[in-house]
Amino acid sequence: MASIPKNEYRERLVKFQANLRRAGLDAALVHGNEADCANVRYLCDYWPTFESAAVLVPAEGEPVLLIGPESQEYARGRSLIPAIEKMIEYRESADPEYPGIAVTSYQDVVAKALPGKTLRKLGLVSYSITPLPVYTSLKAQFPGVELVKADDTLVSLRTIKTANEIACMKKAYDISEKAIDAILAEIKPGMTELQVTGIAQREIYRHGGEYEGHALYVFCGKNTCNAISRPTHNTIKANEIIQLNIGARVCGYSSSVGLPFSIGPLPEPKRRLLEFGLEAHLKTIELMRAGRPAGEVVREYEAFVEGRGFKPYMLYGPCHAIGMMEVERPWMESTSTYELAENMTFQVDTFFYDKDFGLRWENGVRVAQGGCEKFSQRYMKVVQL
Amino acid sequence: MASIPKNEYRERLVKFQANLRRAGLDAALVHGNEADCANVRYLCDYWPTFESAAVLVPAEGEPVLLIGPESQEYARGRSLIPAIEKMIEYRESADPEYPGIAVTSYQDVVAKALPGKTLRKLGLVSYSITPLPVYTSLKAQFPGVELVKADDTLVSLRTIKTANEIACMKKAYDISEKAIDAILAEIKPGMTELQVTGIAQREIYRHGGEYEGHALYVFCGKNTCNAISRPTHNTIKANEIIQLNIGARVCGYSSSVGLPFSIGPLPEPKRRLLEFGLEAHLKTIELMRAGRPAGEVVREYEAFVEGRGFKPYMLYGPCHAIGMMEVERPWMESTSTYELAENMTFQVDTFFYDKDFGLRWENGVRVAQGGCEKFSQRYMKVVQL
Repeated sequence: MASIPKNEYRERLVKFQANLRRAGLDAALVHGNEADCANVRYLCDYWPTFESAAVLVPAEGEPVLLIGPESQEYARGRSLIPAIEKMIEYRESADPEYPGIAVTSYQDVVAKALPGKTLRKLGLVSYSITPLPVYTSLKAQFPGVELVKADDTLVSLRTIKTANEIACMKKAYDISEKAIDAILAEIKPGMTELQVTGIAQREIYRHGGEYEGHALYVFCGKNTCNAISRPTHNTIKANEIIQLNIGARVCGYSSSVGLPFSIGPLPEPKRRLLEFGLEAHLKTIELMRAGRPAGEVVREYEAFVEGRGFKPYMLYGPCHAIGMMEVERPWMESTSTYELAENMTFQVDTFFYDKDFGLRWENGVRVAQGGCEKFSQRYMKVVQL
Repeated sequence: MASIPKNEYRERLVKFQANLRRAGLDAALVHGNEADCANVRYLCDYWPTFESAAVLVPAEGEPVLLIGPESQEYARGRSLIPAIEKMIEYRESADPEYPGIAVTSYQDVVAKALPGKTLRKLGLVSYSITPLPVYTSLKAQFPGVELVKADDTLVSLRTIKTANEIACMKKAYDISEKAIDAILAEIKPGMTELQVTGIAQREIYRHGGEYEGHALYVFCGKNTCNAISRPTHNTIKANEIIQLNIGARVCGYSSSVGLPFSIGPLPEPKRRLLEFGLEAHLKTIELMRAGRPAGEVVREYEAFVEGRGFKPYMLYGPCHAIGMMEVERPWMESTSTYELAENMTFQVDTFFYDKDFGLRWENGVRVAQGGCEKFSQRYMKVVQL
């Protein structure tokens, strides 16, 4: 099974601390929760559940993993950062009091992690998910300290993938394709969207996945209009678009393969948009290569869609980065100012929708010199059962 | 399939608004995310994925559902609150800019929801998961407004369950037991913990669950020490404790059934703690009835465990409420000051651990006059395959 070796976690930490010093930060507090643990896991492989967690990283010296009161044994067995402290700020959202469990404070943890130093400027990483109990405790215990959003200091490291990260992602995409194989072999009209989801779940774990890569999509009929949704008890019907977006997780890395297909033929307008979607999907991949400005790819893609008359059916697009999160920075938007670089990994995410149906082609790629390497391609084709 | 009728959502809102007025609040902002959407779903059945969400509830008048830029179609199809607004504060954690999508501000939303009124005091519900972008936007747009933690105004409503809520929970427990049936029929030494998790996932969706009730537990050997953990690629072995905690979700309501068992006989110390755990589990249920102070149940339970000499093996206990979250308020702790009341629902959660193994019995109950109704009881027995 693909995995990230211990020394790679150490290298990440060294680079992150250099970024902290460059940004003039004395330390960073990196938050993670059950739904989005990427930054915490990137630093130490710890993956919270029920409770949340954070890593306090001083600009120089050793980091500390901060966990909830119940996770000590779990964290000791899993964290590559040996210093671990229990704090009430990382307890479950049901706010238990834990009268029998001793916890520590930010003041104590900072005193240990930054011995003999004064904390003046603390970077908050995973700013968008850092919750109020963390913020209010920091403000109360360090009233003079400047708290600044510092996601760039860490997320920039996650953008270019290493060979080990790419190996994990390839394995995750392979599992996604195998799950779709099983769905296509078993799906029947009358099954619910949720029953089909169960087939995918079974296959993800059977082939070595550690979790879903994202909340899975199995939609039929009008539900396919939704860019974001959850599967329901609605039944699968013939001659309707059935939308699969199936993602697995391997060693913290996510995949997703998106296939719109049908049982029996589709009415003409649906078939036409589905086929154009695949064309636009392949066009996107054709436009991507190391050195191209991301905004230029998007503008060229949008011009292609507009030129073919399908602009009214487009919500956004056409790519976002993928890695530890199925959706991570950077997105490719018309406003993007960065250049594509070798070993950036993107989810090519081609979504079109009309009033009563929609479709989304999704496959993963690695940016290379002169083009892209595809992580998945078995379902870059029109499928009609 | 059990479900919550529309009028019950309306009744919840009316009671919640009465609580807001009683607490002197002009409105409340109720947050939900992918991992903990309970309070948002309780008010309108909306269940965010990828993006987060909130409900702005004025003390009088109509509430508004606030969603991320991509969720409009999904929210329209699902939310029982018809007024829906897109806001950048509820976007994905990858911070996309969405140049083509129009979003609104808290000032505009408040002006619509509280017409002609001045916002002076805003309650934050789901305080422990409310993230910084929400807080900083509120502070910037309403510098004079008092923001207060107001979880009690909503969570107190969730504590006593209605007949419909109980029906959903019973269905969820039934699915958990069916998933354990399948695991016991199929598990073999040499399977990984994750492969066994896949069996449970398959059964949850097959029998009508809409998702896992919590991140599932399948642990073997030393992994059973962990009060909180995630299944791994470690293989199942004979003559070791195998720990299952399998939860399904039905219409937003979670269950979990916890069974420690073995393939082949266990060594004496493990068998003894496993058997005592079951005894303590049943003892807890025996101690619970409407009218009893929760703290008294806990103190009596702890005295029972201590009297039998097993106190060193106890981490916490013995119960927490269950409902929309597998772990929700109130916990039963020695410091608890409330009384058990009819139709409170608890997860009886009996965890004991030693240096190299642990075990957790879990079943759900409804507090009744004179005792408890069990939601699950098929696996209140010692199982050896």
